[in-house]
Amino acid sequence: MLIIGEKINAAIKPVRAAVMERDVKLLQNLAESQRDSGAGYLDINVSTERGTQFDIESMEWVVEKVHEVVDTPLSIDSPDPHVLEAGLRKCQVKSMLNSVTAEDKKLESLLPLAKEFDSEIVALAMGEEGIPPNVEGRLESCEKIAVSAQKYGIALERIYFDPLALSIASDISQGLVTLETLREIKAHFPEAKTTLAVSNISFGLPVRSFVNRSFLLMAMYAGLDSAILDPLDMKLMSAIKVGEMVLGRDSYCMSYLQAYRQELLKL
Amino acid sequence: MLIIGEKINAAIKPVRAAVMERDVKLLQNLAESQRDSGAGYLDINVSTERGTQFDIESMEWVVEKVHEVVDTPLSIDSPDPHVLEAGLRKCQVKSMLNSVTAEDKKLESLLPLAKEFDSEIVALAMGEEGIPPNVEGRLESCEKIAVSAQKYGIALERIYFDPLALSIASDISQGLVTLETLREIKAHFPEAKTTLAVSNISFGLPVRSFVNRSFLLMAMYAGLDSAILDPLDMKLMSAIKVGEMVLGRDSYCMSYLQAYRQELLKL
Repeated sequence: MLIIGEKINAAIKPVRAAVMERDVKLLQNLAESQRDSGAGYLDINVSTERGTQFDIESMEWVVEKVHEVVDTPLSIDSPDPHVLEAGLRKCQVKSMLNSVTAEDKKLESLLPLAKEFDSEIVALAMGEEGIPPNVEGRLESCEKIAVSAQKYGIALERIYFDPLALSIASDISQGLVTLETLREIKAHFPEAKTTLAVSNISFGLPVRSFVNRSFLLMAMYAGLDSAILDPLDMKLMSAIKVGEMVLGRDSYCMSYLQAYRQELLKL
Repeated sequence: MLIIGEKINAAIKPVRAAVMERDVKLLQNLAESQRDSGAGYLDINVSTERGTQFDIESMEWVVEKVHEVVDTPLSIDSPDPHVLEAGLRKCQVKSMLNSVTAEDKKLESLLPLAKEFDSEIVALAMGEEGIPPNVEGRLESCEKIAVSAQKYGIALERIYFDPLALSIASDISQGLVTLETLREIKAHFPEAKTTLAVSNISFGLPVRSFVNRSFLLMAMYAGLDSAILDPLDMKLMSAIKVGEMVLGRDSYCMSYLQAYRQELLKL
């Protein structure tokens, strides 16, 4: 499963400070440690409240500094099309645009960008009215994105649909809604890929990481190709390791056995 | 999810000794501790190598002694129809017959017994040729059992189909075979229930309990109604607790939150 490392995100306080103060070391360390822990992509989100121009400069600077130490592809993550464009332009290897939704404005501004930079796309299963509460609504959003992408000549293979997770503490049905949406996406768009930021599921609950790990295992079986998470969380990464094995993606259990021998499995 | 406590089984050395020496205390303690930990049924397997007559007497004695301390329903577990009959006859509350297969001899001898004692049935997805290696073969075995049961007037609601788990260390495809069989059983026989003894999946691997827990979570999402396991394994039971919540079966997360407050969640 493809891991998108989530740690370079200005919503996290020390990262935000590092972005504001241009602290190269902290950001480069996060890039290297995430790559070393198995991240296949690194998410880069530099959103602050200092305005578009500052965020554009931050994005360009972070992408440049991260590329100095790793050649891992980047997931350029911003709500602002100008910041996205600045990041994609700076990428030296293939990139991912994070994220589009089924909102017309988003589709019209972001799909041409993805096409221009030949980026993969994270596509959130939500539209003009926000996140639909049920499977049907989320699938409709995916369908709208898929149709739009085709118009712009973007193949389904380039899209990672995110079924979105909402807190089960607020609505107990939401775990199953996400899992079933995932399964339906795989059934309706077999060429497309899927991704998920799992941690929203446990918002408001104690022992969140335990809930996240358990949910992630079910999501893997439901058809998850990729996840946006903290690759330094050894317990989460161990759950993925065993999940891959149980699902038959680890020939002769070699990767699991190697992790065991290297004492990398954390239960 | 219904938990069938697996611990009163003469394949386990101290239990075997307790059965041979008629050690009431150990067996009654196992019955009480499993019930207190959330077992809804207790499996009773007294098979020794001392012959049918001894096993019959052992089964009658164990059922009697267990009933002295708990009124939990029992799963009478034996390869020998005479031992099964002796156990079912002694049961004071509803019982489960563990297990039938799609072998003609088994069906002909055991289904009349299940009908006579109005027992629920554990039905293993295997036939004359052993355990089929693929989903189709296992489903055919289930189909044969379902057809036979109907002939004897046994409703599908009374049957717990076990898709069977084989070691992924021997055949890496087997995890997915079990999960997909489970899902197909739920699709083909919506009135029937499912069960599984998860631990075979990890045979030959290190940190087996970790593999078992992870697999169990996926099986819950695939449609598991019941599991045969050690209810004293707090980590396994915690995984079930969080699994039930994520699947929407824990209104307002109350059961999870209560377990957390009582410090019963073991990660």
